[in-house]
Amino acid sequence: MIDALKRLLDDKNVLTAAEDIIPYGFDGTATLKQRPLAVVFPANTAEVAAVIKLTREHKTPVVTRGNGTGLSGGSVPVAGGIVLCLTRLDRVLELDQANLTLTAEAGVVTQRIYEAADAVGLFYPPDPGSMKISTIGGNVAENSGGLRGLKYGVTRDYVMGIEVVLADGSICWLGSKCVKDVAGYNLRDLFIGSEGTLGIITKVLLKLLPKPAARQTLLATFAAMDTAAETVSAIIAAKIIPCTLEFLDRRTLQCVEDFAKVGLPRDAEAVLLIETDGHPAPVAEEASKIEEIARAQGATTIVRAANAEEATRLATARRSAFSALARLRPTTILEDITVPRSKLGDMIRFVNEVATKHNLQIATFGHFGDGNLHPTILTNERDEAEMHRVEHALKEIFDHALSLGGTITGEHGVGLAKKAFLKQQLGDSSYLLLQQIKRTLDPENLLNPGKVF
Amino acid sequence: MIDALKRLLDDKNVLTAAEDIIPYGFDGTATLKQRPLAVVFPANTAEVAAVIKLTREHKTPVVTRGNGTGLSGGSVPVAGGIVLCLTRLDRVLELDQANLTLTAEAGVVTQRIYEAADAVGLFYPPDPGSMKISTIGGNVAENSGGLRGLKYGVTRDYVMGIEVVLADGSICWLGSKCVKDVAGYNLRDLFIGSEGTLGIITKVLLKLLPKPAARQTLLATFAAMDTAAETVSAIIAAKIIPCTLEFLDRRTLQCVEDFAKVGLPRDAEAVLLIETDGHPAPVAEEASKIEEIARAQGATTIVRAANAEEATRLATARRSAFSALARLRPTTILEDITVPRSKLGDMIRFVNEVATKHNLQIATFGHFGDGNLHPTILTNERDEAEMHRVEHALKEIFDHALSLGGTITGEHGVGLAKKAFLKQQLGDSSYLLLQQIKRTLDPENLLNPGKVF
Repeated sequence: MIDALKRLLDDKNVLTAAEDIIPYGFDGTATLKQRPLAVVFPANTAEVAAVIKLTREHKTPVVTRGNGTGLSGGSVPVAGGIVLCLTRLDRVLELDQANLTLTAEAGVVTQRIYEAADAVGLFYPPDPGSMKISTIGGNVAENSGGLRGLKYGVTRDYVMGIEVVLADGSICWLGSKCVKDVAGYNLRDLFIGSEGTLGIITKVLLKLLPKPAARQTLLATFAAMDTAAETVSAIIAAKIIPCTLEFLDRRTLQCVEDFAKVGLPRDAEAVLLIETDGHPAPVAEEASKIEEIARAQGATTIVRAANAEEATRLATARRSAFSALARLRPTTILEDITVPRSKLGDMIRFVNEVATKHNLQIATFGHFGDGNLHPTILTNERDEAEMHRVEHALKEIFDHALSLGGTITGEHGVGLAKKAFLKQQLGDSSYLLLQQIKRTLDPENLLNPGKVF
Repeated sequence: MIDALKRLLDDKNVLTAAEDIIPYGFDGTATLKQRPLAVVFPANTAEVAAVIKLTREHKTPVVTRGNGTGLSGGSVPVAGGIVLCLTRLDRVLELDQANLTLTAEAGVVTQRIYEAADAVGLFYPPDPGSMKISTIGGNVAENSGGLRGLKYGVTRDYVMGIEVVLADGSICWLGSKCVKDVAGYNLRDLFIGSEGTLGIITKVLLKLLPKPAARQTLLATFAAMDTAAETVSAIIAAKIIPCTLEFLDRRTLQCVEDFAKVGLPRDAEAVLLIETDGHPAPVAEEASKIEEIARAQGATTIVRAANAEEATRLATARRSAFSALARLRPTTILEDITVPRSKLGDMIRFVNEVATKHNLQIATFGHFGDGNLHPTILTNERDEAEMHRVEHALKEIFDHALSLGGTITGEHGVGLAKKAFLKQQLGDSSYLLLQQIKRTLDPENLLNPGKVF
């Protein structure tokens, strides 16, 4: 099979030497790795389809990946399987300004899509933390989120069409440039977020928006988490939907301060980073109203960025959270629970109780606007006893998120990391449906097997 | 089985007499009807599930409906089957202002949802033409559109969760109040728009937005269709996304004028109804810019509504289009093609050529902003020769829409009316996938059989 792959793709696009394939043995998830049989780099959809037909003949599992920034182990290889790396499918194919769409191959880095749209006054809103490195195909396969979820939604909300290579090597186009299209079942949305287990996304047709003309950035600190949570509720109750409503807890804030020296008060219990965008008039009004609300709720400090540079400096506090935390201990486990926005205070309190109970360092930051929290466990995978406590803590955190009507994963996917908890969230009947869908689309279980389920 | 249904639901909720069931033998689609075995009215999800278990034992097909306003024959009964009418599931269960959601049973009339949100300063954007009569369950099952598609999207974009009764009578909840949730495949979106063929939607969790503070309505007339189309392109090129961008052709305009006496110039070739909404400052700016663009493109007349009453009067021109047209001939066939916005001029020209070629009366109106056109054939189903010409005309219109990258149905669904054309749009590979999904979820083909495929 390896020889046949080399004939198909050319020798240089089939890696098999240990030193070449090790970098493809993991993604961004702590503690997970596996060595594949080979890593292959097709150049286009036809080559992807040919690889799938060939590997299928040999009953060989295929794990698709882009740049491997995933955070749930979704693109970690399967032993004895092939890694199908789509980074050579890297062309932006069309920017259609009349219909406000962009068509790209799966391997295009997301930042390039943002920039291509931006250059003509258009806007691709989804901004996962990894967007400077991650590929659009990976974003679509994981249905990535980002900082703008509350106002702008997630990747799914911007995907109008996809090209997919199915388990039998056939090629489907699902969707169209039509804003309205109800011809047949929506299979497009079934593949979005399916983590490479149902088919291989090779092309995407994305929806763009006009670029917001103005933006205002505020940073507020609070002496208590509840006050921060109540400020968020009051902003929404005032019918303001900021594009960004991010939060850091005290531990994260201190790490960020050590790392990036933004000038935040180290004794604050919570920091909110709030951005509003759109037409300059409502943006200015909303920013003033947000400031007023935060003050009324008892914010300790409120800084409003005077210009774009200052806004970037304030946003750095949030953007550097993960990197700052990752420096503290050998292993950083970034969690991704989401709860209805009204339950955020409850959830954050619970995470802190769990940290105390199990004697763990957990720093929490995340997207307050859309209820998506990233409790980050700072630990050491070589310390077996501590890892055992981590396991218990995670189980309790997931249980509590579910009891609040939340989800075990808001934007990182199930992959390997969450699969033990999926059934609990979905219930027997939905879980069974998922398995039936998997069996229907991938009857031989060759596409990213062992992930999600 | 009928006796068992009567025991289950009470005699009065099981109709079998010919005079009682005739009104349930058709929907809003011309020329389609069928008499069912019985019409049943469950009161809640448990009763729906019990009906499904019982009818399944007897291998009896079930066609679900709300108020029967569908326009593709999706809820036309199957001979020998049961009609499952969900109008008794009519409770708005929750309006959650903190999380901006509304939960309702499937039988709630869509207008009530709009009004419940409106009463607390919130906004449910999807506004299908039928919304004063149609039920939310039907809207979700058909993924209904409406006049606000360009800016606000369609029903799918506001569905966060659904409760579904599956073919085996089990009950699933799919989705959550979380803005971000990537736990498992997105089955929710598979059921949305599946036209009752995969499961029965009994409850919906809807996303709401803050109500736009201001609105401006303009009506412009044009001496040529191309000028109207170019005006629309110029508005989008100016990065303005109106909430409504509707159009009437000359024939529709004349009918509307005869019917509603709005005071439109009867010799115009095209009318555009344009609404922009949001914060008062951008709304005023956008309205002025739209006026300027329309004038520059050569609009014959431009009227800008001075107040809400005048706006309603202008909107009447568009809202009454179908009723006005339906008075002219015994049979009104309302079509629903959609093309990428940039292809609208081409498509409208083609429809007019087809009308001339086949000697048919076709009036066209629709949603210019999202490319969704309603060519309306005014005909007589008793005139066999004319109906034969209608068939040819429709085939040519569908072929042309598909050749422009469009769809055979933008918002009405496939149902019975379009099923002959679905494969042509999707291609063999996607069509096969759809059939596999249907077989997986409804292996005995008892849920709305014969629809879509």
